[in-house]
Amino acid sequence: MVKVGIIGATGYVGAELLRLLLSHPKVEVAALSSVSFEGQEISNVYKTFLNKTNLICNSMDDVVEKCDVIFTALPHGLSEDIAKKAIENNKICIDMGADFRLSNEDDYEKWYGKKFSQPELHTKSVYGLPELNKEKIKNCSLIANPGCYPTTIELGLMPLLKNSLIKLDGIICDSKSGTTGAGRSLALNTHFPEENETFAPYKVGAHRHTPEIEETLSVMANDKVSITFTPHLLPINRGILSTIYCTPKNKVNLEEIYKLYVEFYKDKPFVNILPLGEIASIKNVRLSNDCYISLHLNHREDQIIVVSTIDNMIKGAAGQGIQNMNIILGFDETEGLNLIAPAF
Amino acid sequence: MVKVGIIGATGYVGAELLRLLLSHPKVEVAALSSVSFEGQEISNVYKTFLNKTNLICNSMDDVVEKCDVIFTALPHGLSEDIAKKAIENNKICIDMGADFRLSNEDDYEKWYGKKFSQPELHTKSVYGLPELNKEKIKNCSLIANPGCYPTTIELGLMPLLKNSLIKLDGIICDSKSGTTGAGRSLALNTHFPEENETFAPYKVGAHRHTPEIEETLSVMANDKVSITFTPHLLPINRGILSTIYCTPKNKVNLEEIYKLYVEFYKDKPFVNILPLGEIASIKNVRLSNDCYISLHLNHREDQIIVVSTIDNMIKGAAGQGIQNMNIILGFDETEGLNLIAPAF
Amino acid sequence: MVKVGIIGATGYVGAELLRLLLSHPKVEVAALSSVSFEGQEISNVYKTFLNKTNLICNSMDDVVEKCDVIFTALPHGLSEDIAKKAIENNKICIDMGADFRLSNEDDYEKWYGKKFSQPELHTKSVYGLPELNKEKIKNCSLIANPGCYPTTIELGLMPLLKNSLIKLDGIICDSKSGTTGAGRSLALNTHFPEENETFAPYKVGAHRHTPEIEETLSVMANDKVSITFTPHLLPINRGILSTIYCTPKNKVNLEEIYKLYVEFYKDKPFVNILPLGEIASIKNVRLSNDCYISLHLNHREDQIIVVSTIDNMIKGAAGQGIQNMNIILGFDETEGLNLIAPAF
Amino acid sequence: MVKVGIIGATGYVGAELLRLLLSHPKVEVAALSSVSFEGQEISNVYKTFLNKTNLICNSMDDVVEKCDVIFTALPHGLSEDIAKKAIENNKICIDMGADFRLSNEDDYEKWYGKKFSQPELHTKSVYGLPELNKEKIKNCSLIANPGCYPTTIELGLMPLLKNSLIKLDGIICDSKSGTTGAGRSLALNTHFPEENETFAPYKVGAHRHTPEIEETLSVMANDKVSITFTPHLLPINRGILSTIYCTPKNKVNLEEIYKLYVEFYKDKPFVNILPLGEIASIKNVRLSNDCYISLHLNHREDQIIVVSTIDNMIKGAAGQGIQNMNIILGFDETEGLNLIAPAF
Repeated sequence: MVKVGIIGATGYVGAELLRLLLSHPKVEVAALSSVSFEGQEISNVYKTFLNKTNLICNSMDDVVEKCDVIFTALPHGLSEDIAKKAIENNKICIDMGADFRLSNEDDYEKWYGKKFSQPELHTKSVYGLPELNKEKIKNCSLIANPGCYPTTIELGLMPLLKNSLIKLDGIICDSKSGTTGAGRSLALNTHFPEENETFAPYKVGAHRHTPEIEETLSVMANDKVSITFTPHLLPINRGILSTIYCTPKNKVNLEEIYKLYVEFYKDKPFVNILPLGEIASIKNVRLSNDCYISLHLNHREDQIIVVSTIDNMIKGAAGQGIQNMNIILGFDETEGLNLIAPAF
Repeated sequence: MVKVGIIGATGYVGAELLRLLLSHPKVEVAALSSVSFEGQEISNVYKTFLNKTNLICNSMDDVVEKCDVIFTALPHGLSEDIAKKAIENNKICIDMGADFRLSNEDDYEKWYGKKFSQPELHTKSVYGLPELNKEKIKNCSLIANPGCYPTTIELGLMPLLKNSLIKLDGIICDSKSGTTGAGRSLALNTHFPEENETFAPYKVGAHRHTPEIEETLSVMANDKVSITFTPHLLPINRGILSTIYCTPKNKVNLEEIYKLYVEFYKDKPFVNILPLGEIASIKNVRLSNDCYISLHLNHREDQIIVVSTIDNMIKGAAGQGIQNMNIILGFDETEGLNLIAPAF
Repeated sequence: MVKVGIIGATGYVGAELLRLLLSHPKVEVAALSSVSFEGQEISNVYKTFLNKTNLICNSMDDVVEKCDVIFTALPHGLSEDIAKKAIENNKICIDMGADFRLSNEDDYEKWYGKKFSQPELHTKSVYGLPELNKEKIKNCSLIANPGCYPTTIELGLMPLLKNSLIKLDGIICDSKSGTTGAGRSLALNTHFPEENETFAPYKVGAHRHTPEIEETLSVMANDKVSITFTPHLLPINRGILSTIYCTPKNKVNLEEIYKLYVEFYKDKPFVNILPLGEIASIKNVRLSNDCYISLHLNHREDQIIVVSTIDNMIKGAAGQGIQNMNIILGFDETEGLNLIAPAF
Repeated sequence: MVKVGIIGATGYVGAELLRLLLSHPKVEVAALSSVSFEGQEISNVYKTFLNKTNLICNSMDDVVEKCDVIFTALPHGLSEDIAKKAIENNKICIDMGADFRLSNEDDYEKWYGKKFSQPELHTKSVYGLPELNKEKIKNCSLIANPGCYPTTIELGLMPLLKNSLIKLDGIICDSKSGTTGAGRSLALNTHFPEENETFAPYKVGAHRHTPEIEETLSVMANDKVSITFTPHLLPINRGILSTIYCTPKNKVNLEEIYKLYVEFYKDKPFVNILPLGEIASIKNVRLSNDCYISLHLNHREDQIIVVSTIDNMIKGAAGQGIQNMNIILGFDETEGLNLIAPAF
């Protein structure tokens, strides 16, 4: 059994990693860390772990020492130094945060307000979207696990971009996320009476996932892609759905685009293309590692509308992290991730 | 007291009209009709009316006979004949449905599958968006009350279109509505366990509000406007929020656009422009007749993003109908509509 | 116009008082206070007041000075001194908190952890449940506005207790409340992802409304009543529903009990007894000042089950406070409170 | 691999059985049936099964023929004849409905309106609450899988009843369930806008689970137990929580009761007793086969309050059915059921 550990185990991403890793048949969770709850049993923080594990939150160093694979689930800016230590000790590090997602340091500084603290590490890290980078991931020991919004948009547009079918500017990404994406920290906009029965965008024109999306789409297109990205907060717990508007270069046949998507993703176990006429919905994917995509035209047939949805905590975070781990360790990509979304 | 009546009183729009009209200081609800519940007290259908009114659901003819103002809240295709009878009897008719919203009969046939049954009436009806057509409404006895989605989008774009500031094609309208918009009829997609904790678009590229929006925006622009419109269903009861993406003709200054909106709407009692930096939210408007609008740019400052929100059952239906009635009857436009959205 | 003010205007009870008082035809809101937001416009704290009022949060003294009627909406323990000042200045004080609800100082100390700071005031205050104490309220200038849970239970049991029909011990009060009852303070159990899609009791056997309920029921019974009270938190915003189990002294006829309730409450404008066979529901009362009650027997017909429901923020707080104000000022009891619950 | 099948696969219980059985390592789902969707792929009915299974809904006979273990998930009254056929063919039948839950035919007729159609089968069936009847289940081929409400209440009270610690009458069971318990059939009370943001009891004094609970509690107590049972509908998808009030025969020490429960359930893998001071919550159990129980006294310490919660679709239906199957087939009781409730 491979020993894995979670640094930042008491945040939502950490807790979801723990839940999934405890059911993974080929790994053993050997250590956890938490700054806020150091010394406490994790089952004291999340009662759903009662009688499921006796693990205690310890120090970061304890995790690095005891484990072969280390997941870092921390606010941005805190993972670089830990990653360095992990790599120096020949461990595998999968960073769930934003520290290694951008290759362009200027973009990182512009959107995150700081420079890289371990710039040399950034040359070794791989952006962990397995449907894009599986071969690179196999031989890598430092993964930048993608953001939740970017995963929906990148999977939604990849076949169009790789085949040069759409214009590269003016892409509109209107995304909606459940509240777990905002994490466990208390805030007025996620106070139940303030968030229930309402809906609104946030950080319009200013969300930090924007440069990550543009950079990855540009890699796919092999040319500069620009988007408008607007995230919204849904009064639900889990799930992201992105409605993506793009302009075809030439007149399109939806049936052909559908076939292209099916062919493109035929060996990707988690990406499902819905038959034409059906519409992707968050309930297709909730609590699974799946991405569901549906394809549409507007009524004038001059815009392609791609609807792409994932569970933000699984394919958008913990599940994708485990998928990356599976690839690195040579396991089947779906090991521990054969989750079927409950129908209700 | 002016006598008013509701045809189709037991649907959601009818029930909301009744609730608001019972509190209106200058009218008396004199008659109701319902096909499904004819002969029953309305308080038996909706228990919230218990001890508030003894009104019984009667026939359509009874409403036409007893009332000076008649609200028709019926599925599309059923209002034209009733409107004719009302107009012939010198009554005022406010149609909450789609029958009179489109002036173009070809569009009506294409999207609704039938021709006008009373074509001459369509020359007399006015599209009842008071912020656009107040003067025409004053002298009209047949109102086509706007659709809920169109109200958000038309109020959101009117100052830009009237001032020729944006390109007229490629406008993206990504709209999200609460479930009351789907009415009281049972359906699997509004069955609680199927709709709760999920989110999806519906009728992508095919929603019947599309031609209404395009026609009205074209009137505002005095030129042909084309949009892409995608409605989504939110797991909440009330409220619509539209996120609207449009391309400025020239480089824009958001501060100037903000001033333009404030000036444009300064005499419109229900339209509120949020200060720059704030973001419109459904909770701003729920249970009121207000529209809240916020203005934004994307990160490249080459797209304007307008966020526009209303309560779909009030400014998007019953409240707007009453606003139209107030204007026709010479009442203050806000009579009976001074509703403050509860903060929670 | 009578001048009214709110001390603690930015909490949920304060905001709801303001919303209702702004629509009250016979009063003018002349001043607000808030410790947390002193100096700010209330429309900056709650955007639903934008363009509805320009009131600014000022000091408590400002409210006492400018207003004839003062609502104190504060955490317990903070109202006594303000009430003293108000009474000394011949103002009317309606305390929305717990400071004056218990007449027994030992109970107050046991459940609230402190003694009365103005014990002489407690001889002048009246427990403001209008259906019980209307005559006393008329001549009083210091009102202890009842708690939300107690209001449901006391209205639910009053006819049975006043008529000595049930045993006075072993009454089970299983109550469920929306989250606004917990107020605006952030807490993990009202963090959206932690409260959504779940349900649990809290403070089992230890909620501070217990002595208030027992004291008031004992007044009604003219003998000592003991209860078991369990509050639960519902994943909704508004509304309380109490399911109350009591044992009849003699074999009961439900039809007779129903008639007794209808007769008992026939002059109480806000209490509605549902016909036998129907079941009270929070949707009957949400956003209104109503209480709906339904009456049942268990299958062995040896227990009476009373279901009693109110909107916790209106009849359970702000609305009841205004009802008390109306009575003191000689207005119609329903002035400003003719609210019909929306059907959805 | 043991071949299993589901009769009534397209209802909510059937779909949940399928989801769990597809992940069970020791069985193969060999056939499904559905009257409403015969001939269709199950992934067409529930899109979450897309690319997970190609199973087609066939006839009941097909399921009986192809499978060793047959789950019947049907409305009451329809399982007896199928069970007979299954038993005659030496198959194992686990009935998810009510047909075999009551041993007393008079009670069945009184509450369900019909007599047993296969009375001799009732002598062979076992009530499938494994924590009560594990030894009997091992040697049985016809299981009456318990109701969802009864499971919470029976597990909640078993240690008290087996140890004769409480009075056998006057037990109050106030239960609250998510909406999946009402199934997939459309109804006004589960129409989203009518069920969202509200809460109410239903079938007060008249729910069909009442005789099942009384019969099973009486078995545990070895004497006649009578209850008052009130179900309520929660605006959530999954989970039941019962708040149970009972009177101890003698003065109780909560610490001793806690130890009794821990000892009683120490070998039951799915029942978790929370430490004193903590309170069971639906979020502890959602999407798992667990039951969480917490123990409390009222403020006078003369009533025991047991809070017991399960996922109604898993421990209250599909999971418990699989637990019974595991026991009969000699598998580990937890096989395929090692589910950890997501923390959010």
